[in-house]
Amino acid sequence: MSLKVYADRMSQPSRAVILFCKLNGIDFEEIKIDLSKRQQLTREFRDINPLKKVPAIQDGRFKLSESHAILIYLASLYPGVADHWYPADVSKSAKIHSVLDWHHSNLRHGAVTYVLNSALAPALGLPLNPEAAAEGEKLLSASLAEIESVWLKGKGRFLLGSLQPSIADLSLVCEIMQLEVVDDKDRERILAPHQRVLKWIDDTKAATRPHFDEVHSVLFKVKEKLKKLRSQGGGAGEAAESITKACVRSKM
Amino acid sequence: MSLKVYADRMSQPSRAVILFCKLNGIDFEEIKIDLSKRQQLTREFRDINPLKKVPAIQDGRFKLSESHAILIYLASLYPGVADHWYPADVSKSAKIHSVLDWHHSNLRHGAVTYVLNSALAPALGLPLNPEAAAEGEKLLSASLAEIESVWLKGKGRFLLGSLQPSIADLSLVCEIMQLEVVDDKDRERILAPHQRVLKWIDDTKAATRPHFDEVHSVLFKVKEKLKKLRSQGGGAGEAAESITKACVRSKM
Repeated sequence: MSLKVYADRMSQPSRAVILFCKLNGIDFEEIKIDLSKRQQLTREFRDINPLKKVPAIQDGRFKLSESHAILIYLASLYPGVADHWYPADVSKSAKIHSVLDWHHSNLRHGAVTYVLNSALAPALGLPLNPEAAAEGEKLLSASLAEIESVWLKGKGRFLLGSLQPSIADLSLVCEIMQLEVVDDKDRERILAPHQRVLKWIDDTKAATRPHFDEVHSVLFKVKEKLKKLRSQGGGAGEAAESITKACVRSKM
Repeated sequence: MSLKVYADRMSQPSRAVILFCKLNGIDFEEIKIDLSKRQQLTREFRDINPLKKVPAIQDGRFKLSESHAILIYLASLYPGVADHWYPADVSKSAKIHSVLDWHHSNLRHGAVTYVLNSALAPALGLPLNPEAAAEGEKLLSASLAEIESVWLKGKGRFLLGSLQPSIADLSLVCEIMQLEVVDDKDRERILAPHQRVLKWIDDTKAATRPHFDEVHSVLFKVKEKLKKLRSQGGGAGEAAESITKACVRSKM
């Protein structure tokens, strides 16, 4: 086995890469870089990715970071990856690039800002910041509306009107899943106005089971721990700290 | 001529796309979407790009937004584009994707935040925000340091140690050029510690002349207007307003 995937499943882009490999039967070794233990800062990992972010891969002597770049590389190079994940047709792949580029400064930026400032800041020793959270929520909600009105336009169940999922569906759905760690009421308030987004998340889950659930199981465990901490009036426990660090330090 | 490029040269990603077309002899019609006049919000333009951002292209019936996606599409599809702009080799193009993905949440985010909050906010009716500017500058400076220590590592004069420029050089250099509109002293303070970045900018300019200068001429005109306004103690004139709106509303 030559492909090594350096990842922390608490990081949403790490999950997207692991999920893609599992869905496509790509033989790989998962090497956990525990963000809560700051393992991304070690000399060993900096030799893999000098930008000190997960996910990163090593394929033989070739090293690569950034989840979107990794997904495109694996889909282009590994045999047996079905065309719908990343079509060979230049016009179709261009549309996927467009969604993935849009993601960075819209859904990703909004979700990370909201989750950090509404729920996880205390675990980093910072106060919750309602103003920053509101700004994050505004961008997050606008992004969900754009997913619905632009990217989910068309007859297919998936992004760009496709009948089957692409790497863009994986990346964006894994991002939205990070909202599982905020208070259920807040999550529902934000997602409920976007019924088509909710259906698309369900469709993506259904199309990628059982791997989807397995890759997200750690996230759900942390969700339960956080819920318990919140009900006890806490919030700065080990679980909260772990996911906060992952959210802040992981990289698209 | 079938390729239409919808752009405003005050927007850095618009300039990258126009520059690429000119460098590669791609026949195109440039359609100005004047961001200062909010032309991106018109019904006609929303039919081209429902996300209401420039640049966008229409190639026959095919429509595409997001500058990185556009650059990859044009380089992949148009005959006569030299391989160094976007190599056919999967490992080499993967590294270019990695730089372009990194750009969104690092150099781009830092530069836009800094420029808006240190110089252009008054033209939007907002106060200058030194705290946000300082945060933007921190990310911008860290990004410049990473360009130097990671992306410019190697023997070549360009990103990824290449001997000739790629679409990543165009995108990142056009972004840094936006700093021309801030006060010269601030710009020099931020860029001076990064001599290798400055040399790479000069090398990219030299490799893309005379088109580089022509595509940036509007930016330099606005720079002079802003300088004059600042020397008069103003800052909220037409020129400042124009570039502010372009900075805020343009899209990667």
